[in-house]
Amino acid sequence: MRTVVWDDDVPCVRMIDQRRLPAEYAQIELKTPKAVAEAIREMAVRGAPAIGASAAFGVALAAAVSRAETPEALWQDVTAAAEILRAARPTAVNLAWALDRMLRAGEAARSEGREAVGARLLAEAQRIADEDVEVNQAIGRFGAELIAPKATVLHHCNTGALATVDYGTALGIIRTAHEQGKQIHVLVDETRPRLQGAKLTAWELEQYGVPYEIIADNAAGYFLSRGDVQAVFVGADRVAANGDVANKIGTYMLALAAQASSVPFYVAVPTSTIDLSVASGADIPIEERDPREVLALEQAGQPIAPPSSRARNPAFDITPHTLVTAFVTEAGVVRPPYKRTLAEAVARMQNAPA
Amino acid sequence: MRTVVWDDDVPCVRMIDQRRLPAEYAQIELKTPKAVAEAIREMAVRGAPAIGASAAFGVALAAAVSRAETPEALWQDVTAAAEILRAARPTAVNLAWALDRMLRAGEAARSEGREAVGARLLAEAQRIADEDVEVNQAIGRFGAELIAPKATVLHHCNTGALATVDYGTALGIIRTAHEQGKQIHVLVDETRPRLQGAKLTAWELEQYGVPYEIIADNAAGYFLSRGDVQAVFVGADRVAANGDVANKIGTYMLALAAQASSVPFYVAVPTSTIDLSVASGADIPIEERDPREVLALEQAGQPIAPPSSRARNPAFDITPHTLVTAFVTEAGVVRPPYKRTLAEAVARMQNAPA
Repeated sequence: MRTVVWDDDVPCVRMIDQRRLPAEYAQIELKTPKAVAEAIREMAVRGAPAIGASAAFGVALAAAVSRAETPEALWQDVTAAAEILRAARPTAVNLAWALDRMLRAGEAARSEGREAVGARLLAEAQRIADEDVEVNQAIGRFGAELIAPKATVLHHCNTGALATVDYGTALGIIRTAHEQGKQIHVLVDETRPRLQGAKLTAWELEQYGVPYEIIADNAAGYFLSRGDVQAVFVGADRVAANGDVANKIGTYMLALAAQASSVPFYVAVPTSTIDLSVASGADIPIEERDPREVLALEQAGQPIAPPSSRARNPAFDITPHTLVTAFVTEAGVVRPPYKRTLAEAVARMQNAPA
Repeated sequence: MRTVVWDDDVPCVRMIDQRRLPAEYAQIELKTPKAVAEAIREMAVRGAPAIGASAAFGVALAAAVSRAETPEALWQDVTAAAEILRAARPTAVNLAWALDRMLRAGEAARSEGREAVGARLLAEAQRIADEDVEVNQAIGRFGAELIAPKATVLHHCNTGALATVDYGTALGIIRTAHEQGKQIHVLVDETRPRLQGAKLTAWELEQYGVPYEIIADNAAGYFLSRGDVQAVFVGADRVAANGDVANKIGTYMLALAAQASSVPFYVAVPTSTIDLSVASGADIPIEERDPREVLALEQAGQPIAPPSSRARNPAFDITPHTLVTAFVTEAGVVRPPYKRTLAEAVARMQNAPA
């Protein structure tokens, strides 16, 4: 099953509840745009491409469940839903990208009446989802060429099928290399505090049959310094015009350690994650999440710290472009100078035939 | 109470069971050298200076509980116990340092008979413990001078009273600066996988009334890069002759991040942690512990990864001397070139009047 799908019968958005993996594989049924926004905020679904597609379906859902009788009233419901969804999480640009694309599509159908808007929104959301799968497979093919046979690659957070609609970005590359028979091995950063590596990436790699070992995030430098790792692959939540990367907390320290050991550091992203409107990482908002994610293990879990402890919990950090060996996009492998090459990659995909 | 003490009445070695903090403050009573070795291996007691003192008491215990009737048979029991204790954990040199010191002390008393050996061993263990407290207080005084008023300092693992006999090394410095009224703030690395930061350092800082916030280890780079941190303080398990540092896993990545943001990185150690017999970090054995420490939270805790997952669990890493701004020892602050200055610091303390 895809991470997020549309169910026309209910109607609703269905998604895998990633908070319950790996212990349990369960789906949730979201019948309002607010419920979709909540699922994004609470990380039932996470990963930049997956929350983009989820938000797109959330907008389609707004039209499907709206009781508005006029096209104007419907459009008010749709735009209100888009703003609720937009506020769910601030860092990943795919959320805003998908919402803007949905609003443009709906806008274009407004003159055709109420039904046309709803149909057009649903079609656009489906297109965003379908394209994401194709984009990921292209990223997988381009990226796999960067992996030598029998390599050990290191991976942070989860960038697999669960972080996208299907297949994955950085983990899609690893999956492709594995399917090509390259006999690779993966060191999986557990990715505190939410443990997306230990929980989700390990769960996916089990299913693909890729050999892996989980490590504490802080052990990555040890393995890199010993020459045990041939390449690092991560995803991103937003890439600035200069190539600075906002990604899951810990990415920056991993990139520093890769550079210190001269190990290539690759960032796998759809071009929809590249935000040419922000000049550098300094302009990307960094979400700070509930300290309880750090202070207690699991959502309803046991405390690990004294009861009165405080915590800080930034969900992302900025990796300067100087630490990035290359980006892997559906437009190909993008190398410095990023200010030019990223803009070119974005333009190439915008002009590509649908 | 000190982390580890001798109880002459039983006789036994008593220590705080650090595995049960912060939920519970409990002591354990160890009646054989094997039980002391087990407590070190299982990390009921941890921290280089604390395991050195614990091993010393373990040797004294060997003599106290020995049924040997001749000095020769007693010495066999004592040396056998020392070898069991020596094998408990490989990386921290304080363990070997304390055992060698105990054996030299006992050896010197062998000609005086069975009772004299036992008395001498106990006296030497007590001296090691008492000296550790004095040494830490000296480290605290020297190190506090490196902290500006209102500074935020970042700390990894636990190097406090619990990691020593009392007071602490890096955390002792933080405590001293706090007691001097410097109004400092501490960012506490949680320190996966055993969470010594979230559990032990936070617990100590609560007691000292030092304001702190816990962070995931992988978030340290984020706060360093924003200029939120004025200094990093860590301890060490072994320092090579060239200044390379073996310390709790994650120290190396933290040192890289400190350097990238030009934040001073200080290593606080008693001179007994400096091992002039190893030329560089490459010669220091790195303990790899049970993967279950990574795969499940808490010793008997819930799994975080799929049931069939594998993990790697190096307990320490090597931080190259080039990343260390200075060492803080009981002989003062030691700056590069370390090959000369560390040897001088060791020589100065060996020649110091007892």
